[in-house]
Order: sequence, then structure tokens, then C-alpha cells
Amino acid sequence: MEAEFHRWLREHVPAHARAPLGLSDDAALLSLAGRADLIVTTDLLSDGVDFRLENDDPRRVGRKALAVNLSDLAAMAARPLAAVVAIALPRAGCGSRTPLDLAIALYEGLLPLAMEFDVALAGGDTNTHDGPLVLSVTALGQLTERGPLTRSGGRPGDKLLVTGKLGGSILGHHFDFTPRVREALLLHDRYELHAGMDISDGLALDLSRMAAESGCGAVVYADQLPLSEAAQCLPHPPQRALGDGEDYELLLAVAVNVAEAILRDQPLDCLITCVGELVAEQGLWQSVGDGKRTPLEPKGWQH
Amino acid sequence: MEAEFHRWLREHVPAHARAPLGLSDDAALLSLAGRADLIVTTDLLSDGVDFRLENDDPRRVGRKALAVNLSDLAAMAARPLAAVVAIALPRAGCGSRTPLDLAIALYEGLLPLAMEFDVALAGGDTNTHDGPLVLSVTALGQLTERGPLTRSGGRPGDKLLVTGKLGGSILGHHFDFTPRVREALLLHDRYELHAGMDISDGLALDLSRMAAESGCGAVVYADQLPLSEAAQCLPHPPQRALGDGEDYELLLAVAVNVAEAILRDQPLDCLITCVGELVAEQGLWQSVGDGKRTPLEPKGWQH
Repeated sequence: MEAEFHRWLREHVPAHARAPLGLSDDAALLSLAGRADLIVTTDLLSDGVDFRLENDDPRRVGRKALAVNLSDLAAMAARPLAAVVAIALPRAGCGSRTPLDLAIALYEGLLPLAMEFDVALAGGDTNTHDGPLVLSVTALGQLTERGPLTRSGGRPGDKLLVTGKLGGSILGHHFDFTPRVREALLLHDRYELHAGMDISDGLALDLSRMAAESGCGAVVYADQLPLSEAAQCLPHPPQRALGDGEDYELLLAVAVNVAEAILRDQPLDCLITCVGELVAEQGLWQSVGDGKRTPLEPKGWQH
Repeated sequence: MEAEFHRWLREHVPAHARAPLGLSDDAALLSLAGRADLIVTTDLLSDGVDFRLENDDPRRVGRKALAVNLSDLAAMAARPLAAVVAIALPRAGCGSRTPLDLAIALYEGLLPLAMEFDVALAGGDTNTHDGPLVLSVTALGQLTERGPLTRSGGRPGDKLLVTGKLGGSILGHHFDFTPRVREALLLHDRYELHAGMDISDGLALDLSRMAAESGCGAVVYADQLPLSEAAQCLPHPPQRALGDGEDYELLLAVAVNVAEAILRDQPLDCLITCVGELVAEQGLWQSVGDGKRTPLEPKGWQH
């Protein structure tokens, strides 16, 4: 439904000079009063979809609601500035927690992350309703003088790099990940990045989106994926790395010589790995050691 | 629960130089990169609380979700710039409408209002979940050189003015109101306003908030309230005007001579009426023609 609705939006939401990049990226560029360096993004989480309040500590839920938005800012290479938090609390609370207990616990989870990334919490809206817990965070960020990192700048021949390790996020990483803000800013500052996004719906699906926005196709080196420990605990680790989603790692497209420099330098605290390349022909493939390509379905987390 | 949670927030959310007004107003001032003219606000609406999808056209619901945020920008005397929209759709849709139908209808309602107020729709997030429809809109606005209109600038002796008419919003106005953006900008430009906010939870409750933020009390002239036609169709029209909520009119505190000028000029397309005054003693009262004051409970829409 999300993909179909996006098509409708692209046809019906008029272009506006204040949102010059449109609706194609993880976040939107705002051009306000002569400046074009503000980035805005919003992500909504629901109980039963993005977490299960019955089992999950609401502090982890609150943290996640902010973290996924900071990951979207990282995807654009923006420095976080501020966030607002809207919450619909289940009127009956959850277990022994009242709605007020829940609201406080959510904030207890997100406040330390806000402090860590120097995010000003600029208000919000907290209500009760006859439904499951819903959190909607909107985050604002500022670009550096290097401008935005977008999905559309990839070129055929570009190498595809990912930070960290992929797969098995459901075992805990989807709560505890650290948004790759510092990594995105460092890489965008030191190297020429053609395209970037965060991997929220799985490498295969998100890569297919980046390739489409860049007017390219892509090949994944299926035997070179950096597998998380969690993925290795589960059946079919490479499939996990391709399709699990919620990795919140960066996916970057860079020229071959830039990829070589980054892989040699390993400038981040986390690993950075080459997982494929962009190609001229539109479509998605995987290859293994012998170089033979087979089609790869862009499966992943569909909203 | 909202009031209690606000107290917790004020104690636990650290002050940040980027949000210099804190959490006391309808919207938050953002001080970004040397400029302090950006305003951000967020409001979340839920089915069963703010509308009933069974009966209400989703176009009106979508329009309302944006309009309440524009009203918050008006309350700060900010010009709307951009908005983001996060939606949790009921997985089963509603009646004969699929989730996609619903999402489109919501946008069909909010797009014309965005056009009318030149709001750039800068992305969003649309998901399905196992719960009722929830919409969370975050709006950004820009202050004029006159700076922000806040709740805290009222002084004892100030007259209290309201735009439009009050009460009975439930009969339709809560969907169809036009946010008082143009009115707020005009008044803030031409007159010296001490304090302002929008009346979303009822005159009595919202006035008690403005008075408290201004360190004052307030007296309502209970026999001089501008009653809407809807309020007059319902029992106890003055109580409706005091407590119904969702009027989305402006409440302003101004010096006596400014009040006289505004009431004489009547510079708006809608009526503007004097409904009371701020007083030095903290508390809330109502008076009628004879000037006798009786205590007034700050009742209204409690979230």
C-alpha cells in the first residue's frame, strides 16, 4: 500500500519551491527564507507493528521512535537539531502502567538519545485514545556545506558500501542501534559520496529504491554481505541480511576509486563493506564468487 | 493526565538553547544557526477522540489535522511554511474504503488547505496498523520581525479579546474552521499585543493557562461572550462558549488603549470582541453586568 500511495502522492502533491527535492528521499530538504540547509523527517511507530508493548520495555520504544528519525537525518547527511514527539497512549495503559507511566517511560528512553545527539526537544502532543500506542516523531536537521546526500546521485559502475552488519535486527538491534549520524557526517565530509540512504526496509528493497532513483540497476555481491551475529543465529543468514529490514545502517554509492579509499582507510568505528555495484541496466541481481548474476527480488519490509 | 505529564516534562526535559521558549506555548520557537524565527508545532488526532470515522468524511478529517496545526502557528503569530504528515491507517480500512482510499481521501482534504495557506508538504509517513486512524501533523512557520506572540506577556489590567464566535464547535466548526493565521499576522503587525494563544480546549481553560503563564488572574465578562449560532442551538449557550473547546479562535491580551483601538477599528473580516480582563490576583472569575465576580472553574477539554 505504501508504494501505491507514494505514486499517488507524487502525482497529486504539487511541487513547492520550499521543498525542492520533493518526496523521494528519507527526509525532505526545506528551503526557507533564502537558506536551503534544513532537513525534516517524520516516522510513526505503532504497537503491534514496530514493537510489542506487551513484551518490550517502553523506554526502548521511546528511544527507537527518536532513533529511526535520526537515522533518516543521517541518510541525508544532516546534523540533528530538534525533534517534536506526538504520542497516542492506550487509555487503559498497559499491564500495571497507567498512560502517565507509559508517557514518562517513553521519554525516559528517548531523552538520553536526544542528549547524546544534542537534539532539542521542542514540544509535542500527548493524548490518550482507544487504540494501541502510537508515537510519531518529527526531526529537524541541518546540512553541512557539502549539501544533502540523496538517493538519486548514483551512477553505473559505482560501488555500494554499507556500514556495520546486516540482518537479524528483530533480535534486538531494531531497538538498540545507534543512528549512523556521526558516520554519515564524517564520510560525507571526507569523501565524495554519490548517493546515500539508510537501510530501514532491508538491503534488497532499499537498494532497489536507490537504484531506481538513480536511474540504474544494481548487483549485490551475495557472498560478501557483512552478516550480524544475530543473522548468523537465524536460518539463512544471507537472506536475513538482504531482507530483514530495520538494520538502520547506511547504504552508499561511490565511485570505484572512492570505494577503494574508504575500504582502505576504514575511517569509522564500525566496519564498512562493499556489497555490490550499480549497473546501467535497470533491475536487481545478486552475484556470487563466479560473477554469475541471478535476478534478486526486492523483498523486504513492506508497510 | 496531560497537565500532570506537562509538569513532568517541564522538570525532566532539559532546557536547550535551540528551544529558548521551552514548552509553555502552542508551538515552540527554534533558534537555529544564528536565526530565531522558526516555529514548530505538532498535533495528533485519533479516531474516536477528535473525529469519528464512521460518521465523518475523511476529507474533513485530513483538513482538520492540518488546520489545528496552522491554528497553533497563528497562536504564535507565525506564517506557515511547511508541514509533514504521519498517518497510521486501520488495516481493515473503514466501511467500503481500503486503507489506500482512506489515505487518499485524507490528503484530498488537507491539500486544498495547504494550498490556501501556501504550506509546502515536505514528506510524511503512512502506515497501516491494528488500531484506529491516527494522524500526526507537524507544521513549521516563520515569525515576522515582530517576533513571537506568547502566552506569558499578559499584564494585570489588560483587556482580553477573542476573534469570531465561541461554542458549539462540535456541530461542525471543529472541522470547517479557518485557522486564524491572517488575523493573527495582521493584528500582530498593526497593534501591540501582550499575549496570545488559540482557544482549542475552551475559553475558560485556555484563559486560565494564559493567565497562569502571565502570572495573573482573569475575569471573564460572562454576559458579553460572542456566541456562535451553533452554541445558541444548544442548551446553556454561555457555558458552551466557556467550555466547549475546538473554537480555534484567537485569545489576546492587550493594553486598554490598544483594546479600544482594535474594537473601534474592527480590522478583521470576522468580529473581534472584548470578553474580559487580566487581574493581579491569581485565579479565574466571571462577572456579569453588575460587576460582581464569582469564581469560574477552568473547565474545558482535558486530554
